Amino acid sequence: MGASQSPRPPEGLDRADELNDLGTAPGTPAGADTRTGDGTRPTIRVGVLGCGNVGAAVARFLLTDDKRIAERTGVQLELAKVAVRSATKERDVPGVEALLTTDAISIVTDPSIDVVVEVMGGISPTRDLVLQALRNGKPVVTANKELLANHGAELWDTAGAAGVDLLFEASVAGGIPLIRALRESLAGERIHRVMGIVNGTTNYILTRMAASGASYQEALSEAQSLGFAERDPTADVEGFDAAAKAAILANVAFGAKVVAGDVYREGISALNLQDFEAARRLGFAIRLLAVVEAGPDGALGVRVHPAMVPQEHPLAAVRDSFNAVFVEGEAVGQLMLFGRGAGGLPTASAVIGDLVDAAHNLTVKGVARKLELHQVAISPIDDLRCAYYLSLFVADRPGVLSAISGVLGHHNVSVRSMEQDAPEPEGVLPGAGAGTGDEPRAGQAHLVFVTHPAYERDMQACLHEMRRLEAVRRIGGLVRVVGT
Amino acid sequence: MGASQSPRPPEGLDRADELNDLGTAPGTPAGADTRTGDGTRPTIRVGVLGCGNVGAAVARFLLTDDKRIAERTGVQLELAKVAVRSATKERDVPGVEALLTTDAISIVTDPSIDVVVEVMGGISPTRDLVLQALRNGKPVVTANKELLANHGAELWDTAGAAGVDLLFEASVAGGIPLIRALRESLAGERIHRVMGIVNGTTNYILTRMAASGASYQEALSEAQSLGFAERDPTADVEGFDAAAKAAILANVAFGAKVVAGDVYREGISALNLQDFEAARRLGFAIRLLAVVEAGPDGALGVRVHPAMVPQEHPLAAVRDSFNAVFVEGEAVGQLMLFGRGAGGLPTASAVIGDLVDAAHNLTVKGVARKLELHQVAISPIDDLRCAYYLSLFVADRPGVLSAISGVLGHHNVSVRSMEQDAPEPEGVLPGAGAGTGDEPRAGQAHLVFVTHPAYERDMQACLHEMRRLEAVRRIGGLVRVVGT
Repeated sequence: MGASQSPRPPEGLDRADELNDLGTAPGTPAGADTRTGDGTRPTIRVGVLGCGNVGAAVARFLLTDDKRIAERTGVQLELAKVAVRSATKERDVPGVEALLTTDAISIVTDPSIDVVVEVMGGISPTRDLVLQALRNGKPVVTANKELLANHGAELWDTAGAAGVDLLFEASVAGGIPLIRALRESLAGERIHRVMGIVNGTTNYILTRMAASGASYQEALSEAQSLGFAERDPTADVEGFDAAAKAAILANVAFGAKVVAGDVYREGISALNLQDFEAARRLGFAIRLLAVVEAGPDGALGVRVHPAMVPQEHPLAAVRDSFNAVFVEGEAVGQLMLFGRGAGGLPTASAVIGDLVDAAHNLTVKGVARKLELHQVAISPIDDLRCAYYLSLFVADRPGVLSAISGVLGHHNVSVRSMEQDAPEPEGVLPGAGAGTGDEPRAGQAHLVFVTHPAYERDMQACLHEMRRLEAVRRIGGLVRVVGT
Repeated sequence: MGASQSPRPPEGLDRADELNDLGTAPGTPAGADTRTGDGTRPTIRVGVLGCGNVGAAVARFLLTDDKRIAERTGVQLELAKVAVRSATKERDVPGVEALLTTDAISIVTDPSIDVVVEVMGGISPTRDLVLQALRNGKPVVTANKELLANHGAELWDTAGAAGVDLLFEASVAGGIPLIRALRESLAGERIHRVMGIVNGTTNYILTRMAASGASYQEALSEAQSLGFAERDPTADVEGFDAAAKAAILANVAFGAKVVAGDVYREGISALNLQDFEAARRLGFAIRLLAVVEAGPDGALGVRVHPAMVPQEHPLAAVRDSFNAVFVEGEAVGQLMLFGRGAGGLPTASAVIGDLVDAAHNLTVKGVARKLELHQVAISPIDDLRCAYYLSLFVADRPGVLSAISGVLGHHNVSVRSMEQDAPEPEGVLPGAGAGTGDEPRAGQAHLVFVTHPAYERDMQACLHEMRRLEAVRRIGGLVRVVGT
């Protein structure tokens, strides 16, 4: 409110008294000497790159809640500049107009700006801007999963060399304080596995399909109309977004040099209503999981795929567009962090937490924690060993089950349960599955297997062989079972 | 392993090279100049007060995992001394024998010890030891909820004056990285409410009663035989343990000067099987919650009591001895942290996270974050406004429901649902409820009400008036409904 009535003076003009000994040469950390002689703490000036959903929420926070944040944390933050593409576009942030600039480079080079928040997204020109800010000694707070998952090592190296913070709590699972937990609280922990529901769009779709019997297309359309899904939903539903986050989780939880492209990836678009029906009967929920796990051989498994999760597992209780990350550690046991994974406000809350951290480090002359990544071997998906759900449409005649069982046995896949399933008429909603070929046809039976743990390569060999059996009309689906 | 083969030299002998400029006078922060000239980081020597369940796990961590922690965090920790009551008692920690001392004061005064871990518990002599350590400039990591909940302000003031860290992640909800989330990640957040399942013993008992139809006494005995409950379970089942944690949550989430004695407290021992039966039918789980919430008038509600929580609420999915803390904030929305709230290993994991933090701050000359507490008004329980579950045993005759409804209406309590319940024979397990007077008797009916939100004072006035009605044989139970 106050900010809208009294716009702040232009950059630098009121800085001399407070930060008269602030190093301004490139390469000198900004704020290296920000504590004033009388012991009071100076104001930390924040430049924000981007003013979309998250950027606007961050700007509003800084313009309206600065006093409260200062009281609570002892850190005085001041919004200095906001880089936007259009300076004339209307913004719903009172007081921000006077701070807008279309010159993003001026923010990362301005010596009067102490910290840079990057919420513009994308790789270009973002990557260059962030690198330049770090090289100029400015700590950077970013929410940019794409940038981190593809150029993380370069960014962390640059931050480390400059001795400044690169904080990224908002990049995975929005407002959930996950990155700090992994980097700091669990610093002593030997982590075995991290499993996350890190994409709210797909979790919403999966929850709807399970609860209402909506088809994939119906649930997707609903998510799109509610604004949970993009018009082109590929990044979400095919698991690209989750794969980027999986890479960042591998960086943070295991210190492993993993990029988005290293992540094995399957989306949710092939799931059908019969999978959800079977899951319900078998006591599972279907979730799209980003999994990072240490293998017995020291290699790291990093993958994104739908999974059958037991109903009593905490991840099964994560519904709608919520996110959660489940951590299994040697000493800490099981741990789960649950909350809003996206949205302007939750993401801005995480950005502000990081900003306070960076500002605190600047004012007390703290030294940033480095993130050092090590080259690790990544397990091929073939080496995965887990239980499987397998749905098959087969000819309804004697001898077929024996042939299928023979294939499984031949490849060392042991069956835990099998059921022959005909969809109950009352379970099929109008339009559901219609024309998708998912319903058993005359003379056709639907078999659902759950296996004991088996190797992925063996399971794939089974599928390969089954596709060549005349009696197997179609492979309905193969879903990994996790968390039993 | 290595530690057990080559016991460390006695205190101080190997310190001169590393920390030759370490301030040793009382009042001078230890580690104020711990960065060595060549830029390498010195070893941080840790003194541990107490070697029980948690202390032994911390010692084992430091003796066996020190290299891994150093690789991952850049912080080199060394176990220097462990204070115990008996130096001759057998300990299951290879290599610890040479480090044991019965002289706890020697740890908090030893200038060669950089950080103190307090896991001995209790108030005396712990309080004096912790204060002395802080005054001697040693950061303290503590798991002592009792001490913090009763003398927190004094400890944080002392730490603040000395400029050293007082870290206490392990004091609430064991291995769950809750305190750091509230202090740092949510630093910018306007928190509305924190609700925690912070006592594993009672959650185990409540889960058992709901799942198996065991009576309170049976479930308690089972918890005792499994080691989840003490022989004298009062601190757990009457909510004293949870009340101490509620006070710490109020400190951290709201910066409020609250001590354990300020917390309104009800335990679980009055709950009976009919409450669980009714909860199941009504779609609730019963949980013992520690609740801290900001009231509309700026006063803070701080209370511990059993609550009916909707089955679809994330807290309802927290079963057995797990803990979870649910946070509602202005920007972040709903957030939940779930995990192991007790046990040597999870608690030690939290201690190590704090130790790394304190050691990092020492080595980089960081300045500790202060926790400043403000006096706040605490809402009397009478001012609470929520929905209620009310179970009544009444005379089974016409006119009684009308009389009861009249009492509720007269006190502005509006009924959302009412059911008259006779326990189904197959729902009553042998021995369950036998002799507890919980089962309806001949000529007696059992009424279960759920109200719309009402004031506690009005609800209590209803109970007072109902007790005087001849037709009301007994108030079965009153449980607050939370999270709808």
